[in-house]
Amino acid sequence: MPVNLPPLNPAQLYPIPGVMLGIGSAGVKTPGRKDVLVMQLAEGSRAAGVFTQNRFCAAPVRLCREFLAGTRPIRALVVNTGNANAGTGLDGEKRARSICTALAEKMAIAPEQVLPFSTGVILEPLPADKIIAALPEAIADLAPAHWVEAANAIMTTDTAPKAASKQVPIDGKTVSITGISKGAGMIHPNMATMLGYVACDAAISQPLLQELVKYAADRSFNSITVDGDTSTNDSFILIATGKAGNAEITEQDSVDYLVLRDAITAISQTLAQAIIRDGEGATKFMTINVEGGNTREECKAVGYAIGRSPLIKTAFFASDPNLGRILCAIGYSNVENLDVNTLEVWLDDVLVAKDGGRVASYKEEDGQRVMNKPEITITVKLNRGVENATVWTCDFSYDYVKINADYRS
Amino acid sequence: MPVNLPPLNPAQLYPIPGVMLGIGSAGVKTPGRKDVLVMQLAEGSRAAGVFTQNRFCAAPVRLCREFLAGTRPIRALVVNTGNANAGTGLDGEKRARSICTALAEKMAIAPEQVLPFSTGVILEPLPADKIIAALPEAIADLAPAHWVEAANAIMTTDTAPKAASKQVPIDGKTVSITGISKGAGMIHPNMATMLGYVACDAAISQPLLQELVKYAADRSFNSITVDGDTSTNDSFILIATGKAGNAEITEQDSVDYLVLRDAITAISQTLAQAIIRDGEGATKFMTINVEGGNTREECKAVGYAIGRSPLIKTAFFASDPNLGRILCAIGYSNVENLDVNTLEVWLDDVLVAKDGGRVASYKEEDGQRVMNKPEITITVKLNRGVENATVWTCDFSYDYVKINADYRS
Repeated sequence: MPVNLPPLNPAQLYPIPGVMLGIGSAGVKTPGRKDVLVMQLAEGSRAAGVFTQNRFCAAPVRLCREFLAGTRPIRALVVNTGNANAGTGLDGEKRARSICTALAEKMAIAPEQVLPFSTGVILEPLPADKIIAALPEAIADLAPAHWVEAANAIMTTDTAPKAASKQVPIDGKTVSITGISKGAGMIHPNMATMLGYVACDAAISQPLLQELVKYAADRSFNSITVDGDTSTNDSFILIATGKAGNAEITEQDSVDYLVLRDAITAISQTLAQAIIRDGEGATKFMTINVEGGNTREECKAVGYAIGRSPLIKTAFFASDPNLGRILCAIGYSNVENLDVNTLEVWLDDVLVAKDGGRVASYKEEDGQRVMNKPEITITVKLNRGVENATVWTCDFSYDYVKINADYRS
Repeated sequence: MPVNLPPLNPAQLYPIPGVMLGIGSAGVKTPGRKDVLVMQLAEGSRAAGVFTQNRFCAAPVRLCREFLAGTRPIRALVVNTGNANAGTGLDGEKRARSICTALAEKMAIAPEQVLPFSTGVILEPLPADKIIAALPEAIADLAPAHWVEAANAIMTTDTAPKAASKQVPIDGKTVSITGISKGAGMIHPNMATMLGYVACDAAISQPLLQELVKYAADRSFNSITVDGDTSTNDSFILIATGKAGNAEITEQDSVDYLVLRDAITAISQTLAQAIIRDGEGATKFMTINVEGGNTREECKAVGYAIGRSPLIKTAFFASDPNLGRILCAIGYSNVENLDVNTLEVWLDDVLVAKDGGRVASYKEEDGQRVMNKPEITITVKLNRGVENATVWTCDFSYDYVKINADYRS
């Protein structure tokens, strides 16, 4: 059961003018499963992406990088679940390319206008033929309203589909933003997570769109961790179709850019948090605020040290205020010249530690009261600068072990 | 049940002339438990140590650093289990110092000749009075043969005591080496692990002893991981009593030094591996050999990326040859300019991957055959240099979660 993740309401997901979604069934891993998603983008759309920094990045990730660096505009995306097409060498690239070519022919575009994505088990050959055979079904299904179906199609060990939507006024026009994501395990993104797609109908220049995708990823998908494993397939794609009718946004310090940036970042955060709420085996959702650092990077290092510690995550699973483990993680987070005597550690509204140790006012029952909640905020005040960062994570339960000991079989 | 960790045979642990060990019962956490160890070193002994790099290092670790940097020779060690005296600020230092003072008075030495050590729960005040009250019992128990009792006294969540012993000829004399360790969880040492003690009766200069403790730690306690959490209390101490009668070893390139270095390193490796064999919830023991790197550091980075991945560790728990997860971990290990197309991955004698993907000769049943074993070697050949490193780790089971969800209660 995800932690406080409400069921999707299709009526609350705005269609994005210029984006159509269709799903098909290739049976990559499970016969009959709707496991292929095609997203079609109208002429004039722009796309930007960030991808895993894993050196064993998947074949489709390598093709995405190549195609996005090219001169032809992206007009379609194709996603399969059940097989990651990672650790598959040159043969994997050929197979991914064959899918792009097949879809491009059917859409009368060039293969390099199709971005391919895969998620699932690593090291197995991708059954490209099955996916190609499912493309006509997905194309026939294309419609602007199919966001929920799309969110379902890209799931692996996710237990619930993830989507978010929002409208903002820009330049006197209403701009719509809708996104989907999937996650569950192998989640410790380094640039973005497999998989997040956010589309809007704003008109925005390509350089600013690229800027925006990095900004939003850093504050959303790049601020979460389930198990500290950076996947081979992480991809976050931002699409702008330009159909809203606003004057093209070209200035980074314009109000229009800031409004769009904050709305896209908010949607990305909701999608990234949804991945944590539905993290493998998760029973608790933790927000780790690190404040008062010299740099955003050191704040994030502290947040990730706490967020990926198996000892902290199992203590939260047990609702055990064994809070010394948090100090331990802060201590090994490799922050230069960290003075443990000036920092503070809070659990929700309870001050736990300062002056290098537990404060006299701390009472075990106060810690226990907070630990019993399904959503908990840990705040670390470094008290040495003005930078902040937030990391989201979940606890570590028997079910995480069960899911990952059983995943392939 | 530890993985292939034979029961200790007291007859196989050589006493070290110049070292006496005694235990006492302070009831720090469990009434009646033998939880205090005193080690007495004869006049003329030398000691050297390496300690955790955690900024929240425990009070006793700070005192050890201070005393080892001083001019008076170390004459005693005192260890308690059940409380780590970490995250306890200045008050924790006072309490640790009071124990050193109490023991020093009884032994007619100075307080700074006593190295203090603590292990157990973090963030709780150390009951120093209870420990001081147990010192007379421990002193009365002092004897050269009490290594097994000492190994038992320092355990926390360990399920078995850990010790190793060896004799080597040096300068026509027989040098004896005996050591003990404890571990179980919060094991990802960065300099050494809580706790390892190795004593020998060789005569060796202080600078070479310091050199040797680092060399041995790097190839033993600093090459293991259970859960990626670097403890606040990690300490590894090497003692040389000089009673063997050999001419003092003073040259780093002498045969005597090399013989002693290799013997101490071998004992340290056995003790470090024993910690992994008895890692919390461990059912498998994995050796990760990384060969052909440009530097020892990059080999270790690859080894640790594999060794701390929850996804790999749960797959090994399940005996599931889901080997793509190994490629994934190599890919995110941050090795600069790593070419995934030239490296090889082996599981025992089975070649799994090269040319960026799975080799055609690989058969699932071969992978399964290896995965079913309790001891497994993963070999990664980077094929770009001549450096090597080895990391030892264990799998990740339901019991790890259970032990750490229950540890305090």
